[in-house]
Amino acid sequence: MSPSEEADLLRVNLAFYQSFESMDYDAMAALWSQRPEDICVHPGWPFLAGWRDIRESWRAIFANTGFMRIDITDVRVELGERLARVCCVENLYSVFDQQTLASQVAATNLFIKVDGAWKVTLHHGSPVASQEVAPADPGDEN
Amino acid sequence: MSPSEEADLLRVNLAFYQSFESMDYDAMAALWSQRPEDICVHPGWPFLAGWRDIRESWRAIFANTGFMRIDITDVRVELGERLARVCCVENLYSVFDQQTLASQVAATNLFIKVDGAWKVTLHHGSPVASQEVAPADPGDEN
Repeated sequence: MSPSEEADLLRVNLAFYQSFESMDYDAMAALWSQRPEDICVHPGWPFLAGWRDIRESWRAIFANTGFMRIDITDVRVELGERLARVCCVENLYSVFDQQTLASQVAATNLFIKVDGAWKVTLHHGSPVASQEVAPADPGDEN
Repeated sequence: MSPSEEADLLRVNLAFYQSFESMDYDAMAALWSQRPEDICVHPGWPFLAGWRDIRESWRAIFANTGFMRIDITDVRVELGERLARVCCVENLYSVFDQQTLASQVAATNLFIKVDGAWKVTLHHGSPVASQEVAPADPGDEN
């Protein structure tokens, strides 16, 4: 497996989080393999099997989320010919009721090679911890 | 990919749950690839990277758990040459304080081919729901 193969994979993994953070449904959809075999487990959800249900979950999440920032750390890769895995920690920051909420999600992302390109075929996120960081705007009226 | 390849994979996935349920550390250890690349996310835990930390987590779980029964349902497979994925729902039943507690975990298990045999290289479990089923022994004194 070449270093460029790993770089390609990490680029797709990053694009996944960029589309997530910017809540860009079309960009997110284009990254998935869009097959009945696709699986998605959002933190605390039961697993969704097949692109049709997964697609609706992203639409619902994007429609119901305000500001969100995701920094990924601890990125770990395992490459195969057809399937490849990236595990990482998602450090999420969201603003709710004038508070910045920080939380961590442990994520497993699995990719499948389709026509020479890596496509997302599984996203599994699970909650790790949740804590309040600081008021979003301490000088604001309340 | 032959049907026997998939049957082999499902056999190893089942053996994983049998060793889990019987809290047999040696059987569990023998199923893993035991490499630094192995990953394990127990429900609600941060992710553990590398066999050394994963090994200690199984020892701790087995030392601190009483009766447990695990039925797996919704088993879904994706095969590659080097890596293969099984997703399933773990239906867990445990007894605590004379109550039977039922809970569900969404699980992603990833396997790697080592010397012709599938070995566990990732287990990611996340909590889905939890509910009380019935008293373990309604006639018992309390």
